[in-house]
Amino acid sequence: MAKQVWKAGNMVYPLPAVMVSTADKEGNTNIFTVAWTGTVCTNPAMVYISVRPERYSYHMIEESGEFVINLTTEQLAHATDYCGVRSGRDVDKWKECHLTAKKAEKLTYAPVIEEAPVNIECVVTKIEKLGSHHMFLAEVKAVQVDESYMDEKGKFELNKTGLLAYSHGEYLGLGKKIGTFGYSVKKKKTADKRTAKKITTKNESRSKKSPEKRTVNKNATFRKKGKAKK
Amino acid sequence: MAKQVWKAGNMVYPLPAVMVSTADKEGNTNIFTVAWTGTVCTNPAMVYISVRPERYSYHMIEESGEFVINLTTEQLAHATDYCGVRSGRDVDKWKECHLTAKKAEKLTYAPVIEEAPVNIECVVTKIEKLGSHHMFLAEVKAVQVDESYMDEKGKFELNKTGLLAYSHGEYLGLGKKIGTFGYSVKKKKTADKRTAKKITTKNESRSKKSPEKRTVNKNATFRKKGKAKK
Repeated sequence: MAKQVWKAGNMVYPLPAVMVSTADKEGNTNIFTVAWTGTVCTNPAMVYISVRPERYSYHMIEESGEFVINLTTEQLAHATDYCGVRSGRDVDKWKECHLTAKKAEKLTYAPVIEEAPVNIECVVTKIEKLGSHHMFLAEVKAVQVDESYMDEKGKFELNKTGLLAYSHGEYLGLGKKIGTFGYSVKKKKTADKRTAKKITTKNESRSKKSPEKRTVNKNATFRKKGKAKK
Repeated sequence: MAKQVWKAGNMVYPLPAVMVSTADKEGNTNIFTVAWTGTVCTNPAMVYISVRPERYSYHMIEESGEFVINLTTEQLAHATDYCGVRSGRDVDKWKECHLTAKKAEKLTYAPVIEEAPVNIECVVTKIEKLGSHHMFLAEVKAVQVDESYMDEKGKFELNKTGLLAYSHGEYLGLGKKIGTFGYSVKKKKTADKRTAKKITTKNESRSKKSPEKRTVNKNATFRKKGKAKK
């Protein structure tokens, strides 16, 4: 395999394309898109977003110490792109993208985006001024999930929401399922499950499934995945 | 849209499932898998990985101050999972997964994984001890890419490598292309390109394309994508 050597650049992909909702203390709000985001710690649950200081929302996060990471879907792809290339200085993105701001559960200022399947409410713990981007490290205070994606057993089916990825300049849907965490060392009995299986998004599955079969367990809680061994 | 409120947890998805290769100063090497990784700064190019201190590779990174992020593909899914659930204390993952260690271009200790389509060579600048995970902030020193994915114009077609995503306990391929960065504000002329298009991976496209059409421009350089407006 012949390799070309390039100078330093951003090549970690695929990344989540998320919409971040923010507010200042006067009640002005905005939405902007980032892909420089991820999980940094499990306990306590912590995330980061890296933001250019010139962006309109930057001072809002700095002032309020809060933001919400809203996961996006194929249905929200247009809004996701729009919120990444237009500035809140020039347009009202809530109105332009037909998105709804709703009070967060655990935050004082930043609203959640109602249309997103998952809202991650965050409080900033530290700002690292790295260069072109400043990294906001933050603790997750609450997570809201769209309960219509709960399956019969009360498991949240995140990968059926039509989640959106960002990779090397493109927005992509998720494709076939290759395996479940730990599948490479599972015993033979469950090996059949390894077979690649197409992810069915909500809209597809709805057409095949009668609505009465889509029961929702309101007491479902987030079931933790198996932990990685060392 | 009814929402359930959960306590704090890790819900930022989809994430890259990457294999990290490491070495100590005595020449012992290892591979381990992480999804807690991403870009934190564009200039300088910086990335992070978050790692539990108990993991076998942790002390190698601490000692050498280096690691390589190797992007993974559907073909490498089994190895990716295996390197996440088995420990380098017990098995030689290079041998078990049929992976090849190769000298990095800009690092002294940590090797690259030859079979990965992209190797990102990193030098640690800071360790943030957050809790269950410590975050290694690092500067990218060089990027190696498999040149068989260069198109006729010398553009690196990362999204045809069959890139692997990790989302909520599952490994997933990438699906259809929804749009290109900035597509939501492009003029009508190019609007037709918005149509969702299936991503063709290398193996699929090879069967449709004769080998002589797959020319490689050895002088191709990484073409920067349009920058986000504020």
